[in-house]
Amino acid sequence: MATIVAPSQISPVEDAEALRLAFKGWGADNKAIIAILGHRNVHQRQQIRKAYDELFEEDLLKRLESEISGDFERAVYRWILEPADRDAVLINVAIKHGGKDYHVVAEIASVLSAEELLAVRRAYRNRYKRSIEEDVSANTTGHLRQLLVGLVSSFRYEGDEINPKLAQSEAHIIHESLKEKKGNNEEEVIRILTTRSKTQLVATFNRYRDEHGVSVSKKLLDQTSDDFHKALHTAIRSINDHKKYYEKVLRNAIKKFGTDEDALSRVIVTRAEKDLKDIKELYYKRNSVHLEDAVSKETSGDYKKFILALLGKQE
Amino acid sequence: MATIVAPSQISPVEDAEALRLAFKGWGADNKAIIAILGHRNVHQRQQIRKAYDELFEEDLLKRLESEISGDFERAVYRWILEPADRDAVLINVAIKHGGKDYHVVAEIASVLSAEELLAVRRAYRNRYKRSIEEDVSANTTGHLRQLLVGLVSSFRYEGDEINPKLAQSEAHIIHESLKEKKGNNEEEVIRILTTRSKTQLVATFNRYRDEHGVSVSKKLLDQTSDDFHKALHTAIRSINDHKKYYEKVLRNAIKKFGTDEDALSRVIVTRAEKDLKDIKELYYKRNSVHLEDAVSKETSGDYKKFILALLGKQE
Repeated sequence: MATIVAPSQISPVEDAEALRLAFKGWGADNKAIIAILGHRNVHQRQQIRKAYDELFEEDLLKRLESEISGDFERAVYRWILEPADRDAVLINVAIKHGGKDYHVVAEIASVLSAEELLAVRRAYRNRYKRSIEEDVSANTTGHLRQLLVGLVSSFRYEGDEINPKLAQSEAHIIHESLKEKKGNNEEEVIRILTTRSKTQLVATFNRYRDEHGVSVSKKLLDQTSDDFHKALHTAIRSINDHKKYYEKVLRNAIKKFGTDEDALSRVIVTRAEKDLKDIKELYYKRNSVHLEDAVSKETSGDYKKFILALLGKQE
Repeated sequence: MATIVAPSQISPVEDAEALRLAFKGWGADNKAIIAILGHRNVHQRQQIRKAYDELFEEDLLKRLESEISGDFERAVYRWILEPADRDAVLINVAIKHGGKDYHVVAEIASVLSAEELLAVRRAYRNRYKRSIEEDVSANTTGHLRQLLVGLVSSFRYEGDEINPKLAQSEAHIIHESLKEKKGNNEEEVIRILTTRSKTQLVATFNRYRDEHGVSVSKKLLDQTSDDFHKALHTAIRSINDHKKYYEKVLRNAIKKFGTDEDALSRVIVTRAEKDLKDIKELYYKRNSVHLEDAVSKETSGDYKKFILALLGKQE
């Protein structure tokens, strides 16, 4: 379930005019920006962008970039984009950041459905005049490249069938690869993870846990923590249970000294219209603190107000 | 330009009834089958399948399989399918044949546009309940796997831009890889070939030829002729100039002792509604023999009649 609270009917023209007014004078009226954009669904936001463009012959996004700044700007900017376009931007930024953020590429590619991922590939091509796999592979090598390119290029089968024999044999392949820490079997693990249907993979992960008393992702934590293993870990967790995965991303982002606003914004902006309510519940169960309260404590200013609006907090 | 000759208006019901009549009695009336199906475009063929199914509650394809046989059956079967579905079948058969036919996978993935390839991936998933990359990667290893999975999963940028510096540096990478016959650079060659836009790749191939006085594909022929290099060669030729590539496939299929009907049918069925006329002209220029005459000489029976119909021969 979603968290954002949006009126069922809005006037895109009135919203565009109110935003224009908020930009008037020295310093924008951030409260007005949040009151409007923090409470509009994806369809309404596109209508407002269009109305703004038609009324004032100006790109709302560009104007926002010049009016607001920092974490607040980045969160609002991403929020306004359509989901596929937003994910294209997130992937591009992650590639530019290099090693540090490659797990974000793995996360996005693993959480999306085949059709959603395809929409992101289209959006990326339109925006950057290159393919995702082109940029990812030009910036990586070896197993990390194979894994990431495989993930972003996948078009998985999405039927419900499970092949128990295959789950058994591939759980065994994964076990063998994790056992010998040098890992000669990595290419097979990459093949399994990037091509099998998610339903089949979950069966394989379950089989692994049944046989070895520990989950694949926990077992992976024993490995060297290089970019490849970090991306592998992210892919496995995202495929296995993406809500639990996101709960952990939020937990780590908040726990971190200084707070990781990029990760916090990414999860909240990306999931606010999808299943952030479920993720919030998981967060409360795991931490005995409401996500809104944790966010309130660790963030500040307009950024905090905006994020809380997306989390469904009523003014 | 296409070669097949189809009336602009047909009656799907009349065609379906005429086919039903052709199946009556012992042994089908192959002449009637060719007269109808050899002269119907893709849209008309789908209408006939539908009409046949509705009139007789029977799958036309299944019925044809039981009525005709051999090369004739295979060619007619593939011809009736919609292009994306046909390519899905061709890829599946090639994977099942193993090493011998992996270059067919490379051919199809390299010739198609990004959207066409995507349609084939969809068709494959619907038909086989698995993804193409899943089946390809489960049956291959190492560089061959990387190349084929990269090709079938690609969603290339299709703009006209050329980056001349990139063409130069990547022509150099390819040269270095081909120079040391052991090839340590194969992963980079695979990256370039599977991710760059076709326009950019052609610029890179041209750059290579300018600098080294020989084309990449000719140079590749010096390498060991294993499955990987065969697929690599096919991909480069298909991307560089797919009509010239198909001319050569036809030439080799006809020249071969016993004729390679599978290759002959594949090219003719696949291109008859697209650019077979251009390929025929290339064939004539290269061999000083008309393709129809060469086919006439090397094939026989109903198969020959059907292939000639697709080649545009009027009765």
